[in-house]
Amino acid sequence: MAGSEHPRIVIAGAGFGGLQVARGLAGAPVDVTLVDRHNYHCFQPLLYQVATAVLSPADIAWPVRHILSRQDNITMLMAQVEGVDRAARLLLTDRGTIPYDFLVLATGATHSYFGHDDWAPYAPGLKDIEDATNLRRSILVAFERAEATDDEEIRRRLLTFVIIGGGPTGVELAGAIAEVARHSLAPDFKNVDPRTARILLIEAGERLLPAFPPELSTYTHQRLEAMGVEVLTGRAVVDCGADHVTLAGGERIDASTKIWAAGVRASAAAQWLGVEMDRAGRCRVGPDLAVPGAPEIFVIGDTSAPPPELGPIPGIAPAAKQMGDHVASVIAARVAGRPAPGPFRYRHAGDLATIGRNAAVVKLGRLQLTGFLGWVFWGLVHVYFLVGARNRFAVAMNWLWNYVTRQRAARLITGDLSGRSPAGRGETGATPTPTSPPSGS
Amino acid sequence: MAGSEHPRIVIAGAGFGGLQVARGLAGAPVDVTLVDRHNYHCFQPLLYQVATAVLSPADIAWPVRHILSRQDNITMLMAQVEGVDRAARLLLTDRGTIPYDFLVLATGATHSYFGHDDWAPYAPGLKDIEDATNLRRSILVAFERAEATDDEEIRRRLLTFVIIGGGPTGVELAGAIAEVARHSLAPDFKNVDPRTARILLIEAGERLLPAFPPELSTYTHQRLEAMGVEVLTGRAVVDCGADHVTLAGGERIDASTKIWAAGVRASAAAQWLGVEMDRAGRCRVGPDLAVPGAPEIFVIGDTSAPPPELGPIPGIAPAAKQMGDHVASVIAARVAGRPAPGPFRYRHAGDLATIGRNAAVVKLGRLQLTGFLGWVFWGLVHVYFLVGARNRFAVAMNWLWNYVTRQRAARLITGDLSGRSPAGRGETGATPTPTSPPSGS
Repeated sequence: MAGSEHPRIVIAGAGFGGLQVARGLAGAPVDVTLVDRHNYHCFQPLLYQVATAVLSPADIAWPVRHILSRQDNITMLMAQVEGVDRAARLLLTDRGTIPYDFLVLATGATHSYFGHDDWAPYAPGLKDIEDATNLRRSILVAFERAEATDDEEIRRRLLTFVIIGGGPTGVELAGAIAEVARHSLAPDFKNVDPRTARILLIEAGERLLPAFPPELSTYTHQRLEAMGVEVLTGRAVVDCGADHVTLAGGERIDASTKIWAAGVRASAAAQWLGVEMDRAGRCRVGPDLAVPGAPEIFVIGDTSAPPPELGPIPGIAPAAKQMGDHVASVIAARVAGRPAPGPFRYRHAGDLATIGRNAAVVKLGRLQLTGFLGWVFWGLVHVYFLVGARNRFAVAMNWLWNYVTRQRAARLITGDLSGRSPAGRGETGATPTPTSPPSGS
Repeated sequence: MAGSEHPRIVIAGAGFGGLQVARGLAGAPVDVTLVDRHNYHCFQPLLYQVATAVLSPADIAWPVRHILSRQDNITMLMAQVEGVDRAARLLLTDRGTIPYDFLVLATGATHSYFGHDDWAPYAPGLKDIEDATNLRRSILVAFERAEATDDEEIRRRLLTFVIIGGGPTGVELAGAIAEVARHSLAPDFKNVDPRTARILLIEAGERLLPAFPPELSTYTHQRLEAMGVEVLTGRAVVDCGADHVTLAGGERIDASTKIWAAGVRASAAAQWLGVEMDRAGRCRVGPDLAVPGAPEIFVIGDTSAPPPELGPIPGIAPAAKQMGDHVASVIAARVAGRPAPGPFRYRHAGDLATIGRNAAVVKLGRLQLTGFLGWVFWGLVHVYFLVGARNRFAVAMNWLWNYVTRQRAARLITGDLSGRSPAGRGETGATPTPTSPPSGS
């Protein structure tokens, strides 16, 4: 992290945006330090497949060090960002401070409960590998507990799964859980029939997948219902507890497993910098994605709020990667003394969401695909964008195996059952307790 | 678990022994309940490959329900065994009591620290999936922390790995960690050279692999040294702390990561039953593997101590499976009113241990293999005994990929970094603190 006279570029976050900045600076006369709290880059679009036991964490996550191992000008540091000292030009982390000449914050987003943070333990979201394995545990444990109970009311509650939020993540989770229950688990249980599981997808807005054309929303709605998912649109959740959710109008749904897919809130980048943020907590930046008044600090990806004149920029991987490309070229130009490129321009390639076996929706310019074609297209795109030949091969093989057998390879209940997952003790009605190590035998 | 007049067979433990009893009762007119604290059967012989990032947990673990889904007379219950009420014939679990007509305890073994249980947090062992992912985290975090520190003494300590115990598990771990450091990680670090990591294998006895012929022990010793492992035989560990071990004679070795592979202690089966146990805590049973005076209770596998006249029975998977076969046939005969088979007879097929790339030792009757041939044989045997075509394929593909690229597919640091793993904060010298959830960002 020292020893040369090159400008020091510090990148916080090894998601799609941060990684792209690092790659874009390959060969440039700079010293890059990439900081992330994990040692891996996670392919978030397939997290729901880890949560529903199709893929293993290692299939969609890859050590950042290895991704960048051929790039000589990069140092990787596993640390948690805690703040920025703008006057001294230091990134503050739990492993020490890192001096920078240019700083790129690409620290992403987390779940937003819209002022109801007390719902978080009952309706966890899906943003990283830990979330995914926790959710996988909740879902699988619910069926195990249902098999073991003789109380019909408890069994109903354990076999009710509520997904809150009808965007791509909510749609994908609802479809995948329906397939787990109806096909993968159904043959293996004796006392309960997993096909009787109730899966509800609740969306406060008027339709699912609001970013897609209305006819694709309608298609998605119908496909999910055909798969046995109860889709409730125009219904807001007004309360959420250990064993239930309540909808606007007062309807109460008893459910051990609730999953939050309704909103995201930016990371604390704006607070670290002490700059203005938008309603979602994102940092307001200029047309070059730099912080106003601090041309050496850039904010990209889900934690960045570019000016409205750049047009709408969705919180998806391609947008983060394009911002990363742009910032890398701005930094490279400035370091070389060349004129900086013009303002950032977002090019929207399209929208994709999968619903289930043989069903996905794709919107690319004027092209719209549904059904089997859309599903194959969705699969090819996702395999293509995975990092590394090994992951592409492993994911493709897992999908093939899952397609042929309808089995799920990663049906493992791992980690703590003592209360971090509300479903873990759902039938006792106990509230979550502090985490303790897994009990030995 | 009720509703018929068939004898109720309750099996505690879904390891090699318990699973074999369940399978052996397929088609018999009995109601079997199989209880395990996990929902999966774990292929323990390959756990060290999860710990060293070659395989993912799902590659070596398989849902018990699915393994037995075609067997109509079995119910599976995920629960932790807490005791046995012999008078009422009930198995006591954290999910309720289960009545039995025949009980089979196959609850395995855990680590034994020979009276030094206070060493357990500093030198964890390797018995289940959680142990393996925790150990994987410790090893990978040690390299990450070494990369980030400027203090040479701390770096040395972080890059010192001590494996205590020179049986097959210790040998396999030492060889695998040497390969991780020297080949997989070496290209990816900038500030430290992972090839400088010090890997020590400490065995209190006179030679490694005491169950093998002496010439294979010598071969193993030499191969490990050629791979860069320091092998210390005839050296006992007399103290173990957060950052060091001390050997008999007073030599102190500073090391952040210590791994315990030195001994096992049986599960609490003997205490649950209130019967006599041997020095390793195993239940003394009769020649038919039933508890003396309780012909309806059997104890098998690592938690069973058959009478000495049956000859030595090692704590390995084939022994547990053979005991499981025997008990299934005894129960089936008794239920059918047929004469029970004779006493249990253990047939020792052989011993295998892998050292590293192109090196393993095999002893099958008069056949001894080493080097590449032994290594290929070891791999074929392990793939063959894995449960399920998917796991065989996934493991074989991971090995092929690892062999060709020397990369490790599952290099993920997951779970809690706040102190459960001594290496997690090794360089601060902090003692382990109670577990807390992973910190968010």
